[in-house]
Amino acid sequence: MTSPAQALFQVRDRVDSALREFLSRQREVLLSAGDELMPGFEAVTGLLAAGKRLRPAFCYWGWRGAGGADGPQIIRAAAALELLHASALVHDDLMDASDTRRGQPSLHRQFEAYHARHHWQGSPGAFGMGMAILLGDLLLSWTDEMFHASGLPDEALRRGRPVLDLMRTEVFAGQYLDLLGQAAGDGTLESALRVVEYKTTKYTIERPLHLGAALAGAGADAQPGGLLAAYSAYGLPLGTAFQLRDDILSVFGDPAQTGKPAGDDVREGKHTVLLAIARARATGPQAAIIDRYLGDPLLDEAGTAEVRTVITESGAVAECEAMISRHVAEAVAALADAPVTAEARDALAGLAVAATARDG
Amino acid sequence: MTSPAQALFQVRDRVDSALREFLSRQREVLLSAGDELMPGFEAVTGLLAAGKRLRPAFCYWGWRGAGGADGPQIIRAAAALELLHASALVHDDLMDASDTRRGQPSLHRQFEAYHARHHWQGSPGAFGMGMAILLGDLLLSWTDEMFHASGLPDEALRRGRPVLDLMRTEVFAGQYLDLLGQAAGDGTLESALRVVEYKTTKYTIERPLHLGAALAGAGADAQPGGLLAAYSAYGLPLGTAFQLRDDILSVFGDPAQTGKPAGDDVREGKHTVLLAIARARATGPQAAIIDRYLGDPLLDEAGTAEVRTVITESGAVAECEAMISRHVAEAVAALADAPVTAEARDALAGLAVAATARDG
Repeated sequence: MTSPAQALFQVRDRVDSALREFLSRQREVLLSAGDELMPGFEAVTGLLAAGKRLRPAFCYWGWRGAGGADGPQIIRAAAALELLHASALVHDDLMDASDTRRGQPSLHRQFEAYHARHHWQGSPGAFGMGMAILLGDLLLSWTDEMFHASGLPDEALRRGRPVLDLMRTEVFAGQYLDLLGQAAGDGTLESALRVVEYKTTKYTIERPLHLGAALAGAGADAQPGGLLAAYSAYGLPLGTAFQLRDDILSVFGDPAQTGKPAGDDVREGKHTVLLAIARARATGPQAAIIDRYLGDPLLDEAGTAEVRTVITESGAVAECEAMISRHVAEAVAALADAPVTAEARDALAGLAVAATARDG
Repeated sequence: MTSPAQALFQVRDRVDSALREFLSRQREVLLSAGDELMPGFEAVTGLLAAGKRLRPAFCYWGWRGAGGADGPQIIRAAAALELLHASALVHDDLMDASDTRRGQPSLHRQFEAYHARHHWQGSPGAFGMGMAILLGDLLLSWTDEMFHASGLPDEALRRGRPVLDLMRTEVFAGQYLDLLGQAAGDGTLESALRVVEYKTTKYTIERPLHLGAALAGAGADAQPGGLLAAYSAYGLPLGTAFQLRDDILSVFGDPAQTGKPAGDDVREGKHTVLLAIARARATGPQAAIIDRYLGDPLLDEAGTAEVRTVITESGAVAECEAMISRHVAEAVAALADAPVTAEARDALAGLAVAATARDG
């Protein structure tokens, strides 16, 4: 049996090298336009140096499970998902006005500080925003470039493309619904779950698995008993469990592990599933505390601690933990009869644990 | 001889239909995630309804000039460039805090107003920004999707991809250098010309031509006397002329034709070639007027008129018009011995005029 850490790490190191190799080629292209581009390049390189590489891992094992042979081509194609993800992080942090990411200042904050240090003209905030928009766009463009330069044959790429397209449209839809939900104040559990479905579940787990399978030549039909249906049966509950773990870490996690300050979701007014459950279970006075702090940009450590207490005492944490366990069990059970190789079954079971039992 | 209008319009109408067809398919994909996505879809549809389709026209004639046969596939591949361009416009308007585009409120302003109308939570500005970031990302993702779903054979797409990749990296580089130049206050003519080279010349004319040629199977080498070299010899001066016309229209154009308020470049502190020439030719008092208004967010109609007078009286407009004529003549002369079909030579000569003699 592959250990959870092994399933993740054996892909991660190879994805890391593939990204480094891709970046060193891009560095030359950017340099030829001017060495002023290097601070931007260094910033995205710094962001890409960290990361759990979960999406590439699911893509890789989706391929292996479908009978695809190991090789550098699938690693490169899978690594392209990390560029897509980095793009989403840069733009998300800007939209959420987040100060940190992966333990470093977020990209827009880095360039805001850069502008201020140089005493340049105009607003540092506008400069930071502009740089983050452009660098996120570059990362998004690179996704396709790395995917197509993976070395996989044309017919494999042709099978994979519609899945990659769908994945990007779905993550867009999830982000859009999230933004709309925050603005319109739609705090129902149902709408929180739909955002999770699009922004996380499909994007993080189901579609990377489907992409790997499509690249390997698995049929595009998702008939019952087929591989794609099995990946969905594994990926959908696991994605929900993954997001619930994120919800809990955002409020209760150690910032040194998560790379984000505690309480960010509350401060940003995110209608997470954890908060929706807490709100639904809360007594009158508990609900008043949640309502007071949710979306308060000035929420401090003391306020976060109050919200934390309410969430715990409402029973929402226990309910979320129970949901995580149930969903992981459901995901792993879906693998039992899945038409995948034994090695992939073990690795996917390991990944299910790695994705949901993490500290950061 | 093809008239300038014909060369543009015969491609434009077909690009318009290809875009409408693509959008109607995407509408279904977005609807399946939720009908809340429709306002976003309508906004990008509105933006895409207008446009000169210059980049698709150059791509199409780049293909035809290389001997490619007419057909719906090349129109669809060329039309994908319009999605890339729309993405750049949405993000550019946000970065420049522009209020209008193509005669309509810019996308971030539309959603700012939408938020305010609904009396939603949070800041209308942040909501508008978030929507513009996401919709620009969607348009950027669609670029690849439409390009690959064009129906061109895999080997054609494989030849075209590196050009599309380079084009996107170059436009990123141009936008980055532009943003940096505005912040660092680098107002030299040399740096203005480098921004034009990357942000406009290569992106608008040279690379679309090269993309068409690569799709049609023209060799990737740019040897003297070859097709790609001929397209560069035509495209580079023409791109500069195109941008100079834009510089003039931005200050002197009729907003009803340009779709943008007059004086935007001055208000935003853009170091355009026109302004760099005016600044270099200005007397002391004239220079003081330029320096007072350049980058002034409160620049009004009276201030714009003052700047206009200085630019004209410095002789900068006459110098720019002479540069435009010289560059267009150089571009058209480069076609004389170019190894392209006679029909393409006529169309490209027509496009050179259409791109530089326009009112908006």
